[in-house]
Amino acid sequence: MANGKLSEEKVFKDPVHRYIHVRDKLIWELIGTSEFQRLRRIRQLGTTYLTFHGAEHSRFNHSLGVYEIVRRIVDDIFKGRPEWNDEERLLCLCAALLHDLGHGPFSHSFEKVFHLDHEDFTQAIIVGNTEVNKVLRTMGDDFPKKVAEVIDKTYQNKQVISLISSQIDADRMDYLQRDAYYTGVSYGHFDMERILRVMRPREDQVVIKNSGMHAVEDYIMSRYQMYWQVYFHPVTRSAEVILTKILHRAKHLHHEFYTFKQDPIHFYSIFEDEVTLEDYLRLDESIINYYFQAWQDEEDPILKDLCRRFNNRNLFKYVEFNPNVQMMTLIELTSLFKKAGIDPDYYLVVDSSSDLPYDFYRPGEEEERLPIHLLMANGDLRELSRESEIVDAISGKRRTDHKLYFPLDLIEDFSTKRTAKKRILELLKI
Amino acid sequence: MANGKLSEEKVFKDPVHRYIHVRDKLIWELIGTSEFQRLRRIRQLGTTYLTFHGAEHSRFNHSLGVYEIVRRIVDDIFKGRPEWNDEERLLCLCAALLHDLGHGPFSHSFEKVFHLDHEDFTQAIIVGNTEVNKVLRTMGDDFPKKVAEVIDKTYQNKQVISLISSQIDADRMDYLQRDAYYTGVSYGHFDMERILRVMRPREDQVVIKNSGMHAVEDYIMSRYQMYWQVYFHPVTRSAEVILTKILHRAKHLHHEFYTFKQDPIHFYSIFEDEVTLEDYLRLDESIINYYFQAWQDEEDPILKDLCRRFNNRNLFKYVEFNPNVQMMTLIELTSLFKKAGIDPDYYLVVDSSSDLPYDFYRPGEEEERLPIHLLMANGDLRELSRESEIVDAISGKRRTDHKLYFPLDLIEDFSTKRTAKKRILELLKI
Amino acid sequence: MANGKLSEEKVFKDPVHRYIHVRDKLIWELIGTSEFQRLRRIRQLGTTYLTFHGAEHSRFNHSLGVYEIVRRIVDDIFKGRPEWNDEERLLCLCAALLHDLGHGPFSHSFEKVFHLDHEDFTQAIIVGNTEVNKVLRTMGDDFPKKVAEVIDKTYQNKQVISLISSQIDADRMDYLQRDAYYTGVSYGHFDMERILRVMRPREDQVVIKNSGMHAVEDYIMSRYQMYWQVYFHPVTRSAEVILTKILHRAKHLHHEFYTFKQDPIHFYSIFEDEVTLEDYLRLDESIINYYFQAWQDEEDPILKDLCRRFNNRNLFKYVEFNPNVQMMTLIELTSLFKKAGIDPDYYLVVDSSSDLPYDFYRPGEEEERLPIHLLMANGDLRELSRESEIVDAISGKRRTDHKLYFPLDLIEDFSTKRTAKKRILELLKI
Amino acid sequence: MANGKLSEEKVFKDPVHRYIHVRDKLIWELIGTSEFQRLRRIRQLGTTYLTFHGAEHSRFNHSLGVYEIVRRIVDDIFKGRPEWNDEERLLCLCAALLHDLGHGPFSHSFEKVFHLDHEDFTQAIIVGNTEVNKVLRTMGDDFPKKVAEVIDKTYQNKQVISLISSQIDADRMDYLQRDAYYTGVSYGHFDMERILRVMRPREDQVVIKNSGMHAVEDYIMSRYQMYWQVYFHPVTRSAEVILTKILHRAKHLHHEFYTFKQDPIHFYSIFEDEVTLEDYLRLDESIINYYFQAWQDEEDPILKDLCRRFNNRNLFKYVEFNPNVQMMTLIELTSLFKKAGIDPDYYLVVDSSSDLPYDFYRPGEEEERLPIHLLMANGDLRELSRESEIVDAISGKRRTDHKLYFPLDLIEDFSTKRTAKKRILELLKI
Repeated sequence: MANGKLSEEKVFKDPVHRYIHVRDKLIWELIGTSEFQRLRRIRQLGTTYLTFHGAEHSRFNHSLGVYEIVRRIVDDIFKGRPEWNDEERLLCLCAALLHDLGHGPFSHSFEKVFHLDHEDFTQAIIVGNTEVNKVLRTMGDDFPKKVAEVIDKTYQNKQVISLISSQIDADRMDYLQRDAYYTGVSYGHFDMERILRVMRPREDQVVIKNSGMHAVEDYIMSRYQMYWQVYFHPVTRSAEVILTKILHRAKHLHHEFYTFKQDPIHFYSIFEDEVTLEDYLRLDESIINYYFQAWQDEEDPILKDLCRRFNNRNLFKYVEFNPNVQMMTLIELTSLFKKAGIDPDYYLVVDSSSDLPYDFYRPGEEEERLPIHLLMANGDLRELSRESEIVDAISGKRRTDHKLYFPLDLIEDFSTKRTAKKRILELLKI
Repeated sequence: MANGKLSEEKVFKDPVHRYIHVRDKLIWELIGTSEFQRLRRIRQLGTTYLTFHGAEHSRFNHSLGVYEIVRRIVDDIFKGRPEWNDEERLLCLCAALLHDLGHGPFSHSFEKVFHLDHEDFTQAIIVGNTEVNKVLRTMGDDFPKKVAEVIDKTYQNKQVISLISSQIDADRMDYLQRDAYYTGVSYGHFDMERILRVMRPREDQVVIKNSGMHAVEDYIMSRYQMYWQVYFHPVTRSAEVILTKILHRAKHLHHEFYTFKQDPIHFYSIFEDEVTLEDYLRLDESIINYYFQAWQDEEDPILKDLCRRFNNRNLFKYVEFNPNVQMMTLIELTSLFKKAGIDPDYYLVVDSSSDLPYDFYRPGEEEERLPIHLLMANGDLRELSRESEIVDAISGKRRTDHKLYFPLDLIEDFSTKRTAKKRILELLKI
Repeated sequence: MANGKLSEEKVFKDPVHRYIHVRDKLIWELIGTSEFQRLRRIRQLGTTYLTFHGAEHSRFNHSLGVYEIVRRIVDDIFKGRPEWNDEERLLCLCAALLHDLGHGPFSHSFEKVFHLDHEDFTQAIIVGNTEVNKVLRTMGDDFPKKVAEVIDKTYQNKQVISLISSQIDADRMDYLQRDAYYTGVSYGHFDMERILRVMRPREDQVVIKNSGMHAVEDYIMSRYQMYWQVYFHPVTRSAEVILTKILHRAKHLHHEFYTFKQDPIHFYSIFEDEVTLEDYLRLDESIINYYFQAWQDEEDPILKDLCRRFNNRNLFKYVEFNPNVQMMTLIELTSLFKKAGIDPDYYLVVDSSSDLPYDFYRPGEEEERLPIHLLMANGDLRELSRESEIVDAISGKRRTDHKLYFPLDLIEDFSTKRTAKKRILELLKI
Repeated sequence: MANGKLSEEKVFKDPVHRYIHVRDKLIWELIGTSEFQRLRRIRQLGTTYLTFHGAEHSRFNHSLGVYEIVRRIVDDIFKGRPEWNDEERLLCLCAALLHDLGHGPFSHSFEKVFHLDHEDFTQAIIVGNTEVNKVLRTMGDDFPKKVAEVIDKTYQNKQVISLISSQIDADRMDYLQRDAYYTGVSYGHFDMERILRVMRPREDQVVIKNSGMHAVEDYIMSRYQMYWQVYFHPVTRSAEVILTKILHRAKHLHHEFYTFKQDPIHFYSIFEDEVTLEDYLRLDESIINYYFQAWQDEEDPILKDLCRRFNNRNLFKYVEFNPNVQMMTLIELTSLFKKAGIDPDYYLVVDSSSDLPYDFYRPGEEEERLPIHLLMANGDLRELSRESEIVDAISGKRRTDHKLYFPLDLIEDFSTKRTAKKRILELLKI
């Protein structure tokens, strides 16, 4: 049975947490499964490496990090406290390790184009006929289901859930620091060690001792900055736009019975909306890259052009654009693109990003968020934004940004359709 | 013509050098070529990510770093000194940026199996019919050739060569720090800023002011530690061994007219020893990964097994083994492996690593190395190991390490051939 | 004349900026003056080392740092821009280096008790009969006056002033990072290199390119956190309270003709409100420490007790206390302290801290602040809080904190005046 | 009794170890004693701050660091191992915390001039009539003596001693990292976390698992570099030379019945070789600085000049000088200094530094060193230099450096004694 200790602790050298410690046989065996090793072939930040060249790290990297943070909380901070049930320990560790297991290649775009949800696949891998499931079942037949419930946020003990997914969880704490480390930006720093030291288990949640409030403020500001400086960087979004359009085009060609030189056999079931777990697990970013490179030599000019752009980082340019108030301009541009022989379905794209840095609980809202609670010296709990002026100032304020993407090089090629293109540039104010 | 300045300086955020600055149009255009962008799909450290999970960075990453170091030396330290000819500036920057251009996927193994040399391909890309060549030629018809000569170490001005390849060059200074950063080990630190500040151009070489000797000592020790702690790590070598054997097996099967389910079309010309530049440039690590995953489902049990091992990090184990004094054991083991039904050609591998941390000039030696010269206060030059006790102590001392690799799981499977396998374990002293 | 270059650049190794570079003879000679070397004997953060033991760094340390930042701005960013007059260069460097020259030992408390102003002394040192003045005069007879005007914010070129003192100046950028480094807190990080790169000289001010807005947000948040986490730390304030009371007591005893065992000859002119520049320059923190240690053995019980507390870090405890709404409690406590034989003039102290993280320009306000202006792509200037939601949220919001300090050990000594002391503890809710 | 736990753990923010954790009441109370707080007024690196301005940190700082390292070893690594007796825990922690307690101001010079030994004072403070002794005695009457024995290396359990003082002890591991941090040099980095993880208690010593050998090599190289780059820096030694001569001069004047304006009452008993513990504890660097500043105005020209030099960092210059082979030159220089009216007893000083980076055990040697032992996989112990080529190369090799110090400004003042001074410069080859 896997519920034992390794004869000798295993350690991974990790640039963010220095060392990742594995003492449980169960964890060691989960790391060795093919489904978990597959995460090495899926980048943590999708196309961000085209903006920040250092961001080439994988989800494998991040998953180990989340595991390590939860391990430290559970083993160093919670252990022995009356409000904590140490029997939940392995469940927490497994959920932390496996929480991103269902991510596909370039998840964001992939899910949008094919109407998939990586969370469904995470569930499916954990409870399905997989190596991961086999390892988990050594802990009991219902153990995989419990792990799946924690990740799905339906597990009855909300303490456990809030370690893995809440507004201050191990997932966010790892990715902010890790993504900052690999991109090289200075925004992702906050005093995690301090935050861990002031985390306390309470009924149905994990709370933060009031003395750690400023470290939490700093964490929330880090998150805010990382979203706008890294995750929503307009160059990254340009690459995403192209990636999305490649997938759309390939699907479209498939449905049009186009004859591919490199037949997309890995995509058949996805294009047909009949994807199986087995098919899904075969996909990773090296497979996608394989096709994108092969498709550079297809006959179809759009697929070929978009793949070349993606592979050689010849991205779309952008301008600020608010579709709500500039609808007429968009309609005119669409028409002009057609006149100019540049298909607007693939070459004129409005992309929007939106983030809510922190929010307290607003019942009935679309996506209910659990607030961060501070544990006061007298034992009371206080919602963070009531104590912190900084957090109060940004609480509940959603920020949205819209941009319009287009291939400037094609538009500036005046050898054809000069008039339409000139007019396009005028409308874009370039 | 590309020999101009960009209207606005471009910067790349880099975790190692903070920022990489590009002011020259020529450099910006080289970075944009498909041959240079291809380096994003080739990892800097091959299979090392299977040992140090953080080491997922690409050669693109490193190439920018080498460029930046040379740029700082030339623009901040050498500029204006009488011994330096600033007309060599762009040549240095191009050679620095492009010095690794010819690397293939998992170069080390690839070159060994197929008798290729990445340096030949670097030359071929620079002088051949490529985007890189087209950009370089904007500087004059003989400019690509000069860049190629610098990288090939045949250029007449040895100063320029020693910036890019010597015992203390921009290449080594970047990779030591970068590989340390991504792996997370603490060994790669040395005071590069200090070394750069004390570099001086002299006839035929770059020398180091004596006041920087200790920083150089520290650099040499960093290099020593990185070789043994990271580059020659036995787990990484185990992955290399498997990778090598996969390539051997595929080539063998191809020559045996085996019918692949996933036909290795990308490898045809390589298997036939007739590789062209065009074929070579199509290869990268996503292509290799594509095949390795497909081959997990081949009929051939060896190819299939080795690919599964590689993809799921189920590596070979190892023991210390000196082939010079243990030849008889190796012969006996080979025979026993055959008896046990485990093909020793693929499953019993001696692997050796060897490094010479520093050496002074020894004329007539196989690989002549240019020594590091210190510039004394009185203007004299002194070879480093004459001044530094530490360097003298390790100078010219080659260290070699031999290990024997094998699949312990197969050997420990006693369901068949129990006697032979027991005897194998005895010989391996496990 | 000092307006020359050193034959060889001098460098200082600095943990915050890596190296501090001095090329100008003038700067080198200023650093060598006795008035500047005196800053080595005055800590940058006064009593903070009693809370954060690492914060033992001096104002010498910080002054070099401010100089280096201004040097980088002027030499690397501003040089050659049409809006910048490079003849102001040395003036900027001198003002940066010397801006804190007039600080006395534990300035904050010292100035409060003796009604002194370190800025007056900075002016006096620069224009008075000092080594610094002599060095500055080598640049022209009116040069010292110009340096003094920059520091006094009366110089006609406001660009120069805003480099040294504005809401985003070299002074703040150095001390935030430096104080974070020495205390070890994680709050002082922001991307200074980025901010420097986007600083631009404009008429009457230095502005920030809009692309650097997020780095500025991060800087403002760092400043906010450093104020509340480090500079206003209640333990540091407790030490300040005691220090202040020691100085008060010594002055009081002097005016009462008390016979000191260690006569405070260094303080005579200060106690008499007749301090001269010469007397002032004799003071530093080793002198103060000398007296505080000697006074541990004085007859006067209050002076003796307070000095022992300060030297051995036996500080006052504190509770939250709002003097505006708790005036009656304070009156009652004062009366009870008297009853308990604990002199409330020295042992019951309300201390308040207050900070305004950022503000735009509000004409007519007590302390007029120049706002930070962003330089938009189209050349317009926009005040920071109009562009940044985060900054807008905290702009103009003053935060104030009040605490009541008292010697808990004396109150809890129930061997005398038990009833009064019990009642004191009740009122303090301890 | 102090042998209890604090109701809440206390933490100190430390820039080197992030946090220092105190759970034991005993430790907390020791930190609060006046003898331990006194260490805040004694710099860790004496005059080094005159070379590296960041090196202003105190021995208080370092002592907490050594304590924390030992705490981690004992609590996280040794606890529960059969070779370790956890009853030694508090003894180790106390010895670590207090090991430098007897250091005086600028210890190195002070001890040399006055023939004192800080180790004697450490012993005296621990067993004498002090606050520290009173706190220690709460653990039993013989506990102070045991702590003193550990520090004196006479305690029977050599395991405990080797944690605090051996060739790889907590003392060295803290100061290398801490001094590197505060000076800002890049040499002091090594992977302490790794070393701690592989430390194992064995009979009579602490050994290192063989897998950590490279981290130990790196530590030894760090130490080597720190000695030559920081601790023996010639500018620091110049300040030491002046400091030493000031103390000599003051003692000399005292014995000559010179009438000081600032009478050295704190030094009386030291000058008379009759120092008591009480007198000694009154001394710290602020007291010394007080005198040095006062003495700037003495009548005696030598005392006055040397103090001004020290306070204003107007140090002696130096040349390489080997007293063994250049004795005749030294004699001639001495004579010329006299002729030139510059007293050679105070102004012509040969200073030597010497270090032995590592040595194995050589019985009968003057200072016996315990070697570092590696614990091999098979349980054997192997002396480090037998396994490590790098360490073997430098093992037992003492490096010595001699310099001659003199006041160049006085010699270059040709207004008097021109001929003698010219000849001095010739001999010094300046």
